Amino acid sequence: MSGAPFSLAPGPTARDARRVPAELAARLRAALPEGTVLTEEGDRTAYLVEERSLYRGQAPIVLRPRSTAEVAAAVRICAEACVPIVPQGGNTGLVGGTVSGAHEVLLSLGRMNRIEDVDPLNFTMTVQAGCVLADIQAAAEAHGRLFPLSLGAQGSCQIGGNLASNAGGINVLRYGNARELTLGLEVVLADGRVWNGLRALHKDNTGYALKHLFIGSEGTLGIITRAVLKLFPRLTDRQVAFCALRDPADALTLLSMARDRAGEAVTAFELVSSFALEIVEHHTGGQSPFTERHPVYALIELAGSDADGTLRPVLESLLEQAFEAGLVADAVIAESLEQAAALWRLREGIPEAQKKAGGSIKHDVSVPVSRVPAFLKRAGDAVAAAMPGARICAFGHLGDGNIHYNLTQPEGMEKAAFLARWEEMNGIVHDIVVDLGGSISAEHGIGLLKAGELRRYKDPVEMELMGRLRDALDPARILNPGKMVGLG
Amino acid sequence: MSGAPFSLAPGPTARDARRVPAELAARLRAALPEGTVLTEEGDRTAYLVEERSLYRGQAPIVLRPRSTAEVAAAVRICAEACVPIVPQGGNTGLVGGTVSGAHEVLLSLGRMNRIEDVDPLNFTMTVQAGCVLADIQAAAEAHGRLFPLSLGAQGSCQIGGNLASNAGGINVLRYGNARELTLGLEVVLADGRVWNGLRALHKDNTGYALKHLFIGSEGTLGIITRAVLKLFPRLTDRQVAFCALRDPADALTLLSMARDRAGEAVTAFELVSSFALEIVEHHTGGQSPFTERHPVYALIELAGSDADGTLRPVLESLLEQAFEAGLVADAVIAESLEQAAALWRLREGIPEAQKKAGGSIKHDVSVPVSRVPAFLKRAGDAVAAAMPGARICAFGHLGDGNIHYNLTQPEGMEKAAFLARWEEMNGIVHDIVVDLGGSISAEHGIGLLKAGELRRYKDPVEMELMGRLRDALDPARILNPGKMVGLG
Repeated sequence: MSGAPFSLAPGPTARDARRVPAELAARLRAALPEGTVLTEEGDRTAYLVEERSLYRGQAPIVLRPRSTAEVAAAVRICAEACVPIVPQGGNTGLVGGTVSGAHEVLLSLGRMNRIEDVDPLNFTMTVQAGCVLADIQAAAEAHGRLFPLSLGAQGSCQIGGNLASNAGGINVLRYGNARELTLGLEVVLADGRVWNGLRALHKDNTGYALKHLFIGSEGTLGIITRAVLKLFPRLTDRQVAFCALRDPADALTLLSMARDRAGEAVTAFELVSSFALEIVEHHTGGQSPFTERHPVYALIELAGSDADGTLRPVLESLLEQAFEAGLVADAVIAESLEQAAALWRLREGIPEAQKKAGGSIKHDVSVPVSRVPAFLKRAGDAVAAAMPGARICAFGHLGDGNIHYNLTQPEGMEKAAFLARWEEMNGIVHDIVVDLGGSISAEHGIGLLKAGELRRYKDPVEMELMGRLRDALDPARILNPGKMVGLG
Repeated sequence: MSGAPFSLAPGPTARDARRVPAELAARLRAALPEGTVLTEEGDRTAYLVEERSLYRGQAPIVLRPRSTAEVAAAVRICAEACVPIVPQGGNTGLVGGTVSGAHEVLLSLGRMNRIEDVDPLNFTMTVQAGCVLADIQAAAEAHGRLFPLSLGAQGSCQIGGNLASNAGGINVLRYGNARELTLGLEVVLADGRVWNGLRALHKDNTGYALKHLFIGSEGTLGIITRAVLKLFPRLTDRQVAFCALRDPADALTLLSMARDRAGEAVTAFELVSSFALEIVEHHTGGQSPFTERHPVYALIELAGSDADGTLRPVLESLLEQAFEAGLVADAVIAESLEQAAALWRLREGIPEAQKKAGGSIKHDVSVPVSRVPAFLKRAGDAVAAAMPGARICAFGHLGDGNIHYNLTQPEGMEKAAFLARWEEMNGIVHDIVVDLGGSISAEHGIGLLKAGELRRYKDPVEMELMGRLRDALDPARILNPGKMVGLG
């Protein structure tokens, strides 16, 4: 599938460059410090493979700049040579957004990994794009602050990639996506100029919201080199409950009740389907806190900044109220941080358990929160009709209406035969999502994987507007061609 | 000053249309229902004057469509005739963003004022652009939810204008600007087509963030016709304190302490300078809770969703701690809703008191929160040097770093002589703001009033990018020419 970027939509300019990379490499080497330009296969491999081996990159040149000026110089040289650039962060994305073609240059931001400034009074932090998310979280913590973006790949994903893909994760209900956590950006443009929007301002109404255009554009409009991130008060009181429920509609009522009672303290509200908990128990050694099986589970986390532990009684009385109302069949509250971590592992172990349970056909969808029960019902019926025996591993961020709706292969079916029906099953699920006013990519983005789906489902007016913006900012298609909007 | 839109930057297309309005009016009348096209002077006046009489609009035709289809039809006809359109909401803006020229058509959204849907489980609401902000707040409240946007003009400003100008107000610290409160938009484009981005999704990573481009663009990229707004849990516990402090640096330490202790419960943290409180007492009948005068005051509001009143002890212990640390010279906590309202009036009465205290030269600026003390010191010194006796009425949203830094005329100076120095004083204050990495328009926007200042202070790369976006979405300059980016 590595040739995919070139087959999506024939573009007029950059992709036609079929220059000998040696000439380009020489020009790049002349302009950049030693060790920045990699052309040996062994040196490049780490940037071209990805964990799942869905795609294999082909870039003959990999760049590892250490500064904004070096990124700018590299882009200028590539733009002059009409050779496209694929920016890459931690290479942890799930949609092939950083897969490079044989006539493209890969630019890794990983060596721009300095935390430049932390301003606790302004609740901000200035970082380079290659900083690993976990390092940013730790630096905030060291200054008595919280950077709330949190997701599975946080040990290796980089903030530049998080911003380019507008990453989500487990705390979106309270804090928003990566977009909402960003005050300022510095971006290298398609012609190598630098836009300095690195402002540490909580309010600024002086012009169009350029930063929001670059955030979530998957490297197709500019290369994010630095960012000012928003910090929050540290959370010193965490209370976690795991609840057994009759159905997703009851989970929604419980969510509403929890937010009415505890407001923003509701930091996470995660859905775990019966099958998801089953495979976690079977494959990861996790253990359900309940002796019986239940149709669906919810993990609730309340968190706050008050050291006096005022949230525990709130959570207890919430669950009592829910139990009395017949909403909750059973529930446990973690008595220690260790127990809280064990409950979280029941949710976070799902992706690993899925790998061990066989092939998966995945969907990262969202619908209005109020329509999640309707979505689960309709999609469940449609999947069962199309592929009897398919096991539905639904889980995710119920509080955001974002469900990872994954299908595990039916027992006895061949994995290859199952995966061959990926597009067909995607179509069935996504049709229902779109009919319910939902999104076919809630948090993972479009990349290569969903560029075709995007064209299928998006309003043509919106596709045309996106094309015009692409034309306005990168007319020669230097930046990550073929990704996201699929424009070459 | 009404001719200003035409003098800012000569544009190539729409502005050259000098057609007889009668012909255009006839075409509009043929396409739109009776009562939609106003041409009589008496009918138009309300849309052409503004409270402060800084500007006077000149549009010979005023349109009052009732639906998106009617807005689209009107834009199509005007675009064909190359006549620019100035969209208008509640006409409460402070920067002349809806002032119309003699060769422009004014389009009022005021009759599109239906709240179409409230979805409490999804925490969303779908509204037409002409809904008055206070009506939206009330509808949310009626469904047990909060729409937190709150500002002085809420009794008459309209949500479409709030979104077009990315309105701020008193709750930004906790909930963000209008931008952060918007999930979806419907927009009529410059050619009369409709972009349907009216999605009620909390997460959606399928393409460029178009909604963020339209929000805050002051009607220069599209006309917002409908929106899906984000709702929040209702606040049932409100605690308000008014504190006397030695200096703004102590106020910052107190803010940090308050957020460490109470997290998002810190809903407002407002600064009131000594002079501001003085004129409120003198001109509005407000009464300081303190017998002595202090250099600066802070109004703190903690609010939460827990009916058990857990915030009162938090606020009390916070103030005790601050008192012991020598941060707070004196403080009162409201004992009733009535007392809370009286304390808020000391802050909210400032604009009215200012009008009565003489001429004002105004600045709506922001800097990083940590730099507010440096800004106040430097600006105070520079103003005193340039205009001895000028009285500084500084107040506003300290928690956001957003200070309304207004100068009241020196005693004994002529009002006209004072106001004649508007631009000079703006230059002095804004130079310091920009030097501190700040913004010359934190929340009021650019409009006509600051289009020149924008060009003076903005990085040319950023101005060029904005121009390219304008070219991409409105090449013929049909929408609100001359406003914001100043492009004709």
